[in-house]
Amino acid sequence: MTTMAETTWSPLFKEAVSTDFRDFHECLDQDKRIALYDVAGSKVHAHMLARAGILTKEENNHIQVGLDQIADEMRSGAFVWKKELEDVHMNVESRLTALVGDAGKKLHTARSRNDQVATDIRLYARAELDALASELTSLVLAFVDLADRHAETIMPGFTHLQVAQPVTFGHHLMAYAEMFLRDLERVRQARERLNVSPLGAAALAGTGYPIDPAYSAGELGFSRAFRNSLDAVSDRDYVVDICAAGAIIMGHLSRFSEEVILWCTPMFDFIEVGDQFCTGSSIMPQKRNPDLAELVRGKAARIIGNLATSAALMKAQPLAFNKDQQESKPPLTDTLENVRGAVTVTAQMLPTIKVRAANMLAAAEQGYSTATDLADYLVRAGLPFRDAHHSVAAIVGAAREKGLATLSDMPLAEMQTFAPALGEDVYEVLSVEGSVGSRNHPGGTAPQQVRRAIAELRSLLA
Amino acid sequence: MTTMAETTWSPLFKEAVSTDFRDFHECLDQDKRIALYDVAGSKVHAHMLARAGILTKEENNHIQVGLDQIADEMRSGAFVWKKELEDVHMNVESRLTALVGDAGKKLHTARSRNDQVATDIRLYARAELDALASELTSLVLAFVDLADRHAETIMPGFTHLQVAQPVTFGHHLMAYAEMFLRDLERVRQARERLNVSPLGAAALAGTGYPIDPAYSAGELGFSRAFRNSLDAVSDRDYVVDICAAGAIIMGHLSRFSEEVILWCTPMFDFIEVGDQFCTGSSIMPQKRNPDLAELVRGKAARIIGNLATSAALMKAQPLAFNKDQQESKPPLTDTLENVRGAVTVTAQMLPTIKVRAANMLAAAEQGYSTATDLADYLVRAGLPFRDAHHSVAAIVGAAREKGLATLSDMPLAEMQTFAPALGEDVYEVLSVEGSVGSRNHPGGTAPQQVRRAIAELRSLLA
Amino acid sequence: MTTMAETTWSPLFKEAVSTDFRDFHECLDQDKRIALYDVAGSKVHAHMLARAGILTKEENNHIQVGLDQIADEMRSGAFVWKKELEDVHMNVESRLTALVGDAGKKLHTARSRNDQVATDIRLYARAELDALASELTSLVLAFVDLADRHAETIMPGFTHLQVAQPVTFGHHLMAYAEMFLRDLERVRQARERLNVSPLGAAALAGTGYPIDPAYSAGELGFSRAFRNSLDAVSDRDYVVDICAAGAIIMGHLSRFSEEVILWCTPMFDFIEVGDQFCTGSSIMPQKRNPDLAELVRGKAARIIGNLATSAALMKAQPLAFNKDQQESKPPLTDTLENVRGAVTVTAQMLPTIKVRAANMLAAAEQGYSTATDLADYLVRAGLPFRDAHHSVAAIVGAAREKGLATLSDMPLAEMQTFAPALGEDVYEVLSVEGSVGSRNHPGGTAPQQVRRAIAELRSLLA
Amino acid sequence: MTTMAETTWSPLFKEAVSTDFRDFHECLDQDKRIALYDVAGSKVHAHMLARAGILTKEENNHIQVGLDQIADEMRSGAFVWKKELEDVHMNVESRLTALVGDAGKKLHTARSRNDQVATDIRLYARAELDALASELTSLVLAFVDLADRHAETIMPGFTHLQVAQPVTFGHHLMAYAEMFLRDLERVRQARERLNVSPLGAAALAGTGYPIDPAYSAGELGFSRAFRNSLDAVSDRDYVVDICAAGAIIMGHLSRFSEEVILWCTPMFDFIEVGDQFCTGSSIMPQKRNPDLAELVRGKAARIIGNLATSAALMKAQPLAFNKDQQESKPPLTDTLENVRGAVTVTAQMLPTIKVRAANMLAAAEQGYSTATDLADYLVRAGLPFRDAHHSVAAIVGAAREKGLATLSDMPLAEMQTFAPALGEDVYEVLSVEGSVGSRNHPGGTAPQQVRRAIAELRSLLA
Repeated sequence: MTTMAETTWSPLFKEAVSTDFRDFHECLDQDKRIALYDVAGSKVHAHMLARAGILTKEENNHIQVGLDQIADEMRSGAFVWKKELEDVHMNVESRLTALVGDAGKKLHTARSRNDQVATDIRLYARAELDALASELTSLVLAFVDLADRHAETIMPGFTHLQVAQPVTFGHHLMAYAEMFLRDLERVRQARERLNVSPLGAAALAGTGYPIDPAYSAGELGFSRAFRNSLDAVSDRDYVVDICAAGAIIMGHLSRFSEEVILWCTPMFDFIEVGDQFCTGSSIMPQKRNPDLAELVRGKAARIIGNLATSAALMKAQPLAFNKDQQESKPPLTDTLENVRGAVTVTAQMLPTIKVRAANMLAAAEQGYSTATDLADYLVRAGLPFRDAHHSVAAIVGAAREKGLATLSDMPLAEMQTFAPALGEDVYEVLSVEGSVGSRNHPGGTAPQQVRRAIAELRSLLA
Repeated sequence: MTTMAETTWSPLFKEAVSTDFRDFHECLDQDKRIALYDVAGSKVHAHMLARAGILTKEENNHIQVGLDQIADEMRSGAFVWKKELEDVHMNVESRLTALVGDAGKKLHTARSRNDQVATDIRLYARAELDALASELTSLVLAFVDLADRHAETIMPGFTHLQVAQPVTFGHHLMAYAEMFLRDLERVRQARERLNVSPLGAAALAGTGYPIDPAYSAGELGFSRAFRNSLDAVSDRDYVVDICAAGAIIMGHLSRFSEEVILWCTPMFDFIEVGDQFCTGSSIMPQKRNPDLAELVRGKAARIIGNLATSAALMKAQPLAFNKDQQESKPPLTDTLENVRGAVTVTAQMLPTIKVRAANMLAAAEQGYSTATDLADYLVRAGLPFRDAHHSVAAIVGAAREKGLATLSDMPLAEMQTFAPALGEDVYEVLSVEGSVGSRNHPGGTAPQQVRRAIAELRSLLA
Repeated sequence: MTTMAETTWSPLFKEAVSTDFRDFHECLDQDKRIALYDVAGSKVHAHMLARAGILTKEENNHIQVGLDQIADEMRSGAFVWKKELEDVHMNVESRLTALVGDAGKKLHTARSRNDQVATDIRLYARAELDALASELTSLVLAFVDLADRHAETIMPGFTHLQVAQPVTFGHHLMAYAEMFLRDLERVRQARERLNVSPLGAAALAGTGYPIDPAYSAGELGFSRAFRNSLDAVSDRDYVVDICAAGAIIMGHLSRFSEEVILWCTPMFDFIEVGDQFCTGSSIMPQKRNPDLAELVRGKAARIIGNLATSAALMKAQPLAFNKDQQESKPPLTDTLENVRGAVTVTAQMLPTIKVRAANMLAAAEQGYSTATDLADYLVRAGLPFRDAHHSVAAIVGAAREKGLATLSDMPLAEMQTFAPALGEDVYEVLSVEGSVGSRNHPGGTAPQQVRRAIAELRSLLA
Repeated sequence: MTTMAETTWSPLFKEAVSTDFRDFHECLDQDKRIALYDVAGSKVHAHMLARAGILTKEENNHIQVGLDQIADEMRSGAFVWKKELEDVHMNVESRLTALVGDAGKKLHTARSRNDQVATDIRLYARAELDALASELTSLVLAFVDLADRHAETIMPGFTHLQVAQPVTFGHHLMAYAEMFLRDLERVRQARERLNVSPLGAAALAGTGYPIDPAYSAGELGFSRAFRNSLDAVSDRDYVVDICAAGAIIMGHLSRFSEEVILWCTPMFDFIEVGDQFCTGSSIMPQKRNPDLAELVRGKAARIIGNLATSAALMKAQPLAFNKDQQESKPPLTDTLENVRGAVTVTAQMLPTIKVRAANMLAAAEQGYSTATDLADYLVRAGLPFRDAHHSVAAIVGAAREKGLATLSDMPLAEMQTFAPALGEDVYEVLSVEGSVGSRNHPGGTAPQQVRRAIAELRSLLA
C-alpha cells in the first residue's frame, strides 16, 4: 500500500507511517473547506512564477488549465480524495501532475506547504468573515425593524431581574442593535488585520528564487504582502481574533436568547416565537419549546471553548511552524460556521416574534417600577436625592405591607406621612407612560429617542 | 416534504420548521455514536414494561426482534438515517414502527427522550472510559518497559531547563508512569460516578406507570438507579468530569511530547523516534519531524477548550432539561476520541525510541551538575548547608570564568581556596555515576530504586 | 539595599535583580497562606534529619524552639515579612537563623525549595478541602431540611423553562442535594489523591543523605511518600483536580442561583430570600435584589477561568520544576476560597427562604401541565403511546385556541371528539395533586418518595 | 454597628446583611483602583448638573471643593475606607456629605451606580490601555534595536524544532516586532471601542432630568456619549476585548519566553540573559535560571483563564445590570496589570541579552540546513522541484549514514550518483551565508532585507 512516507516525504524514511498515527493525524475532511482556496492560491503562484521566468509560459498554461479542471472536479464532487496523500495540498499536486505531467511537479517551486496553508486559511477566513459581516448587518436591521414596531410598547426594565423602571420594548431591542453593531466593527477589524499575504515566505526564511510577493498578494486581494517570513508562517493570531469576536457575538446572542426564553415562559408570557423555531416534546403533548434560543445559548459555551483552545494552542510555541498549528483549524472553522449559523437563524426568528403588549404593560406596572420617578419628584420639590430616596423607600415599604399592587393605589395623605412635599400631581409621575416619556434625552427610553436611534442606525448601515 | 413538526411533535405546530434552523439544530452525525446504545437501552426498557404488564409478552417479543434487526442494520450500514426525523431516537422508533407496527408506538410508554438520551450517553461514555482505562494501562506499561531498559542510563535532570543534577533516564520515564497511573484512577472514578441509571426519570418527574427502575439499571450494568428524577435528566457532571480527566491526561502527554521534541532536536540529540511516527517536509528534503509529539501537544489545547465548554455550558441552567444540553455531546465525544487516540499512539511510539546514551551522558556532565553533591560533601565535613552552598557557588563561578567543562577539571588546591575542608576524595562525589548512585532512598534516582519502582508498578497493574 | 541576588542566590550573580522584575515576580502576599504549613513541614523535616543523625539532637531542639516561636509570631502578626527575601521559605529560614544561629542554616540540608513548597501547598490544600467537605455537608443538609418542609408543596416542573409537569418543591430541592453529594465525593477523591508527601524529593532527584521520606510523610498525615522524585516536584495535577471540582460545584450553585433569581422576580414570585442576603439600589428606592445568588452565579465564571488557567499552565512543561509553577498558586487559592465562600453563604441563605406556595401551585396549574397524564390515561385505555400523544396535543391545541387556563376547564364531550376513549374519571388525572402523587416509584416526585430520599440522604451523611 | 442595609439601602430592609455575605461580596480593595476615576467622574457630573440647573452654582462649588479634598486624601493615603459602606461610590458620597453637607446628598441626582461604575471602569481601562500601548511601543523598539545589532548574525531557523534553514538572528527577532506591532493595533482598537461615555444612562432607562450626556462625555475625554441607556449599563464587551488582546500579547511573549529558555539551556547555549532577570537555586549552587521568561510563560496561562472568565461571565445574562458584573473587574484589572508588567520587564530584559554568535553559527551548519538550497540548485539545472526534492533527500540519507556533519563534507562525485546535474559550484549554495544571502526579497531573511524591515518599523513608530 502506498504510505505517507513513500509518496510524500523522501527516501529518508524506511518505515511506513503507523496507520493509527495516520488516523490520528488525518485532517482531510476538516481541510476540504480550504480546497478551492488552495487551487486559487496555486493559480496565482504559478502566474507569479511565470512572470519571474521560473516557469515557462507553456508550463504555466498547463498548470492553469489543470487547476481549473481540479476546481471543477471539486465543485462537482468528482474529485477523488486520497487519504494516503495526507492533506489537501498533496492531493491537489498529485492530481495536477497526473493531469499535466512534469509542470505539476514544478508548481511547488519557491514555496512550502507552510506559506501555502497559511495563504489558504487566510483566504477562507476572509471570505467567511465577509459573509458573517453581511449576516450581522441583517441581524442589526432585524432588531431595528422590530424596534420600530415597538417604539411605544411598554415593558418592565429589569436590573437583577427585578422590576426596575418601565422601558419601551423598542429601546430594549435597540440595545442589541448596538451590541451587534460593535460586533460588526470587530469582525471588520479582524478581517483587515488578517488580510496580509504570507505567500512567498516559503518554509520560514523566504526563498532564493526571484519571487514577487507583492504581485501574489495583490492578485489574491490581500492589502499587502508579509514583512517577515518567520512571522508569516507562524502567525495564527487571526484564529484567536476570530474566536474572540465569535465569543463576544455569541455572548450577545446568548443574552438575547436568555431573554427570549424568559419572555416565552408562561410566568412572563411576553412574546411568542414562530413555530418554525420551536420544537415539541416526545412525551409531553402540550410542549412548545423555544429550542432555537436554547441551542444558541448552548453554542455560546462551545465558542468559549474554541477561544480557550486557540489561545492555549499558541502558548509557548517556538518559531516557526510546528505541527500543533494543524489544531488551529478546528476552532477556527467551528467558530465561523456556528457563529454564522446562530446569527442567521436568530435574524430569521426575529420577525416571527408576536408581542403580547398587554402582558408587558401589566408587568411594567408591577413592582413599584416608578418609585424612582417619585424620588425625583421630591428632588424637584427641594429634597436632596439621598433623602428623597429614603422617603420613597418607606412609602414602598408601606405599600408592600398593605399589598398594594402599585404606588398609584396609595392615597395621597398616606404618602404625605412619609413625604409631606407630595401634592396631587404626583399621580402623573407614577404612571409608566409618564415615566417612559420623561426619559427624553439622547440614549433614553422615551419613544422619541428610540425613533431617533433607529434612524441613526439605519443611516449608519445604509 | 415531511418536517420535524409534522412527524414528531404534534398538531399544535402549524408551521414547518425553518430549514436553516433544522440545519443548525441537526446532530444526527454526532449522535450515531450512541445509536447502538439507544437500541440496547430500548430493549431493556421493553423488557421492563413487559414485566410490569405495560406491554404484552407478544408486543415485547415483536419489539425485541425489531430492535435486534435495527441493530444489525446499523452494524452493516444498511440502516437508513432520516434527517427529518431529527435525532437517533426518532429514527429508531420510526423504523421500529415500520417493522413491527403498533408495538413500536408503545415503546415510548413511561419514558421520555430526556431519560432515554441520558441513558444512552452514559452507556456510551462508560464503554469509552473502559477502553481508555485499558489504553492507559498499556501506556503505563510501555513507560515501565522502556524505563526497565534504561534504569542505569544517565541523563541530565533539568529544572528551569537548566542542567540541575544527573538522573537516570529510567527514573525520568517512571515519573510519567506515575502520572498516568493517577490518570487511571481519575478515569475509573469518573466511570464509577456516572454509572447510575437515569432510565425511568421520564421527562423530569418520573412516571405514573408502575415501572421498576432498579431492574432496568441492573440489566444495563449500572450500579444503581437514579435517586431523583430531576437530577437524572439534568445532570451532565460526567461531561465535565471526563473533560477534566482528559485535560489532565493530555497535560501529561503534552509534557512528555515537549520532551520528545526537545530530545529530538539536534541541539539535544538524545533520542530518535521511529519513522512510523515522523513526517518530512514538502520543501526541505532533510527534514524528519517528530510530528506525533507535536500533534499531541496541540491536541492538549483542544481538550482544554472542551473542558471550558463543558463547564460554561452548564453554568446557570435552570432545572431540568434544556436544549443547551445537546451541546454537551460534542465536547464529550471529541474528548474521549482524541484522548484515547493520543494515549494509544503514544504507547505505540514508545518502543520505537532509540536512545543515544552517549549524548545523554555527555550532557549530564555539563553544567556543573554535581555542584549539589559538592555542597553535600562540605556539609558532611561540618559546614551548615547554607554556607556550603555559598562556597560551592564561588567554585562554580571560578570554573565558569576559566571555561572548565566540569568541576572535576579544577585542581584540588584551587577548590580549597574556596572550601578548605575539601580533600582528594572529592572527585568521587563529582562523578555523575556517583551522584546518581547516592540518591538511593525510595523515590530517588539511583538505578536500584528505579528497579524497585518498576517492580512496584508492575505489581500494581498485574 | 539587600537584594534577592545578594541574600539568596550566590556569588555567581554580579548584578542585583531588577526591581521591576522583583515586583513582577513577587508572591509573598499570595504565599502567606502557606506560611504556617511551611513551619509545620520544617519541624517534621528537622526531626527526620535528627533521627537520621544529620542534625544533632541539640540542633534539632534549637530549630524546634525557633520554629515554634516563628509560628507564634505569624499567628500574632508580629512576624516581619521581608520582600527582599523573595518568598516564605527564605523569610522563615532567615528568621530562624537570626533566632538560633548556625542550626538554622542546617535546616535546608537534604531538601530543596522544590519539595518544600510542594509539601506546603499539599498541606494547605488538604486542610482547605477538609473544610470545604464540611461546608458541603452542611449545604446538603440545608437542602434536605428545606425539602423536608416542602415534600408536599406543588410547583411547576420546567423543561426548556416551559411548564412541563407538576413536581413537588421538596423533590426539586432534593435534586440539588444529589448534586452536592456527588461534589462531596469529588472533593474527597481530590483530597485522597493529593495526600502524598513530596518531602525528600529535594530538587528533583532525591538526595544523597540517608533520609526517611516515609517518616516525614507519616508525621505530616500523608497516606504515603512519593514514589518518584521527579514526579513529586513537578506534579500540580491536584490544582486542576481542585479547580475542576470547584467548577462543578459552582456550576451546581449557579444553577440553583439562577432559579433563586427566577423565583424572586415578580413574574414568578415563588420565594422571598431573607434581607440578610439581598441588597437595594442607590437610585431605585423599591429595589430588593437577590444579590447573593447573582454574585454566586458570576463567581462560577471566575472558577471556570481558574480551571482553564490551571490546565493551560501545565501544558507542555518539560520536567521537572519550572518557574511557571508559581502561577499554579493563584488559581488554587482563589478557587478554594471562593468556592468555600459560595457554599457557606448559600447554605446560610437557604433557611431564610420564604415559600409562596399559593403562587407555585397556581403556576403548576398553568401551561396544561398534566397533558402527559392525559396521554397516559389513553394508553391505559389501549392506545399506543405515540397515538395518545397526538390526540392530547390536539386537545391542548383546542384548549389554547379557546383560551382555557387548564385542561380541566374543557368539557368531556369536547375532549372526546379528539379521544373517544376518555371518560368522566379523566378529571382526576388532570389534577396536579393526582399527577404528582402518581409518580410514586423510587426517584419519582411523589411526596412519599421525597420523604424516602430525605431519609436516605440523612442516613448517608450521618 | 452600621450595616450595609442601614446606611445604603432603605427602610425596606429589616435585617442586617449577613457578615459572611458581606465578606463574600466585598470588593473594596479591588475597587480602590477606580477611586480617583470615580471622583473625576463625579466632578464632571456635578458640573453638568449645575449647567442644567439641577444643582445651584454654590452647591456645585461645595461639591468640587469636597471632591478635590477627597482626591487629595486618597493620594496621600489619608482617606479612611469603610467596609460597611460597601463600595467606592458610597465611601466617596458619605465622605463628601460629611465634608459639605446636603450638597453631597444631591450629587447622586440623575445618575445611578450602574452608569457611575461603568464610567469609572472605562476611564480606568482607557488609562491602562494607553500605558500598555506605550510599553508595547518600547517593546517593539527593543526588538528592533537588538535586531539591528544582529542583522548578519546567523542562527538555525527551526520548524518542528528541527533545523530547517539558516536565518539571521535579526530576522528572527523582527518576527516578534511584527507580532507586537499587531498587538499595538489591537490595544488601540479596544481603546477606541470602549471610549464611549455611559454617564447619564442612570439605572438603565436614562433619567427624567434634563441632563446633557454629550457634555459629560466631552469633559471626560470620551469620543461620544452612549446611544442606548440599557446597553450603556450592561455592556462589558471591553473586558473581553481587553482579555483577548492580553491573551494574544501573552501568547507572543510566551513564544519568545520559550525561545529564551531554549536558547539559555546548555544544550543550545545561544544567549545569556542578564543577572538582573535570573535567579539561582536554594540547593544547587551552580544554577542560573531564566526565571523571568518562565514566569511570563506561566502568566500567559493566567490571562487565558481571565479571558475564559470574562466570556463565560456575560453568557446568558439578561439585560440590564446584574450583580454578576461585579466579577468582571478582577479579570480586567488582573489582565491589565499582569500584561503590562510582562511587557515592561521583557522590554527591559532584551538589552541584557548576550549573544553567543559562534554557537548559533555552528548550530546553523548542523542538520543539513542547506538541503533546500541544493534542491533549488537542481531546479535551476532543469529538474522539477518535486524530483529535485527526492534526489536531495537521498543525498541527505547517504550523508547521515556516513555520519557527515554537513552536506559540504560530501565529495561531488558521490553527490552526483544521486543528482548528475550537480557541478563544482554546488559548494557555494551549501554555505549558510550563501543560503541566507540568497533570500533577498521583501520579507526574506537576507541581512539587507532585515535592515529594510528595521527602517520600516522605526518609521511606522516614529
